[in-house]
Amino acid sequence: MKKIINKPEDVVYEMLKGLLSSNPDKLAGILEKRIIYRKDPYLNKVAIISGSGSGHEPDQAFYVGKGMLDAACAGPVFAAPTLDAIVDAAKIIDRGRGVLFLVKNYTGDRANFEMASEMLEFEGGPNVETVIINDDVAVKDSTFTAGRRGVAGAIFVYKIVGAKSEEEGVNLQSLKKLAMQVNENVRSMGFALKSCTTPAKGSPTFELGSDEIELGVGLHGEPGRQRLKYMPANEIIKIITESVIEDLPFRPFDEVAVMVNGLGGTPIGELYIAAGIVLDILKGKNIKVFRTYVNNFCTSLDMEGCSVSLLRLNEEFKRLLCAPVDIPIRYF
Amino acid sequence: MKKIINKPEDVVYEMLKGLLSSNPDKLAGILEKRIIYRKDPYLNKVAIISGSGSGHEPDQAFYVGKGMLDAACAGPVFAAPTLDAIVDAAKIIDRGRGVLFLVKNYTGDRANFEMASEMLEFEGGPNVETVIINDDVAVKDSTFTAGRRGVAGAIFVYKIVGAKSEEEGVNLQSLKKLAMQVNENVRSMGFALKSCTTPAKGSPTFELGSDEIELGVGLHGEPGRQRLKYMPANEIIKIITESVIEDLPFRPFDEVAVMVNGLGGTPIGELYIAAGIVLDILKGKNIKVFRTYVNNFCTSLDMEGCSVSLLRLNEEFKRLLCAPVDIPIRYF
Repeated sequence: MKKIINKPEDVVYEMLKGLLSSNPDKLAGILEKRIIYRKDPYLNKVAIISGSGSGHEPDQAFYVGKGMLDAACAGPVFAAPTLDAIVDAAKIIDRGRGVLFLVKNYTGDRANFEMASEMLEFEGGPNVETVIINDDVAVKDSTFTAGRRGVAGAIFVYKIVGAKSEEEGVNLQSLKKLAMQVNENVRSMGFALKSCTTPAKGSPTFELGSDEIELGVGLHGEPGRQRLKYMPANEIIKIITESVIEDLPFRPFDEVAVMVNGLGGTPIGELYIAAGIVLDILKGKNIKVFRTYVNNFCTSLDMEGCSVSLLRLNEEFKRLLCAPVDIPIRYF
Repeated sequence: MKKIINKPEDVVYEMLKGLLSSNPDKLAGILEKRIIYRKDPYLNKVAIISGSGSGHEPDQAFYVGKGMLDAACAGPVFAAPTLDAIVDAAKIIDRGRGVLFLVKNYTGDRANFEMASEMLEFEGGPNVETVIINDDVAVKDSTFTAGRRGVAGAIFVYKIVGAKSEEEGVNLQSLKKLAMQVNENVRSMGFALKSCTTPAKGSPTFELGSDEIELGVGLHGEPGRQRLKYMPANEIIKIITESVIEDLPFRPFDEVAVMVNGLGGTPIGELYIAAGIVLDILKGKNIKVFRTYVNNFCTSLDMEGCSVSLLRLNEEFKRLLCAPVDIPIRYF
């Protein structure tokens, strides 16, 4: 294993330290607890927190900022954030307006966020609501999940709910309802060409032959729907895009946002090849595209492959998708 | 080789097609000639064009937009854009205010941009100036270059000159001077942990042992300064950062912009580990950091590794770095 790291056990600490040092004016954090939060003394809003294992960057700490998340709790690589970090983050970021937890559906993450929620209720605040995100159509249950997994569709939830939370007078209950509504309208599926390698293990998480694809792979390398033979982009992108479309289902004249999400090790050029194919398929089905998002949004370390997410839009979603953000992950 | 592609010979066409379909309101192009340009009927400014082989995405076509480039000419993977594409792009995008070519220093790119410039002069316009970018401190000459290579520092040139070009009344000569001034103040160096694989060849461009690093690698896999044994991030980042600092040299109390640029296959989390190390080194030398840029800016397909660039700032550079951009590569 060759990576730009020092000791495997220091990877998350050093990554978050780099994030803080690169954004000294906007972010604060408690590195020992892997908490990152907005450094904004004027914050007066319902706070939005997400968290999960590390290794999915930029998800989630890199989305902490105006118009998106207010705090993120990172776990060790591919392991849930700790109960006490979640509790502390909620206390730090609450401004008396309550806290919304946005949690991708993995057993460990759910358990710790639920316990944190109970502990905060027991301690008398802040007021907390939780929405579970489960957009992955690939499999019903999985290694780390009962029910569907949460994957890149979560980014649409953070974006829309985060934008709404910046508006005057929005309360916790209405944000919870909005988050559930976005989750109900987003579907995703991905595939891997190559496994990821965690720093701790130092070898690939799963074995994938030089002529194989894992269809519907999970964000931690969990098995997907099927092991397929390698095939050209046109074919594999058609399989995942149609699986996504048929699931909701998305129908002719629906208006959608499209996300082509790289899994970490795939160059942006290949993601745009995939995007071109997705857009052709949608055009052929008379599904109208409002906006296309192509980048690494929710990754699995250095896994190669991508996922496709579709979000069915209404006027409010469109407005909130276009609202400005000020987050550490950016180009300029 | 497993990539999200169809036929290797169609990779660039399909990637640029995906770029256009994802940005139908803002970009236009001639796909057969691999030209991408701003779709802005009100454009009234000196036009800025860059170009080089494909495989360095988002460099350059993904930087075409308000505040940065007006057109990009892509070549085949790792091969210069054609003479006639450059000539056509200049004619399409010129608004009578002249065209500035920003060209990274590679023999093939230089030759074709120079010939295009001569041909346009012979044909009576548009008026063209060229600035060669050569920020890589790694080696003096290289496989594809006489003199120093142009690498990720080019992005700072596009950004600053692009921002300036949007200001009222700015002319071609002053932009040329500004581009040269940015180039004189930026230095870069990188290293590879893993070679890239071009779609046409289908196997790694160069051999790198499982315990080796290529220090000062070129953007096409050209040999660098030295083949080193794999070492922790702290050590390799120190070597490249100090090589960059010593070259200009950057001095205590200089104010700089920092870029940690991924080479394509390295996850963003590792780039932030590198950024944390660079920032600690600069702090130790009393070099003041204005802003830190961490992402994949100028890549080599799926190469693993990163480069570090430093730009010595003045007040005008700072203002122009912070000016808004509207380019296809983005998150939201």
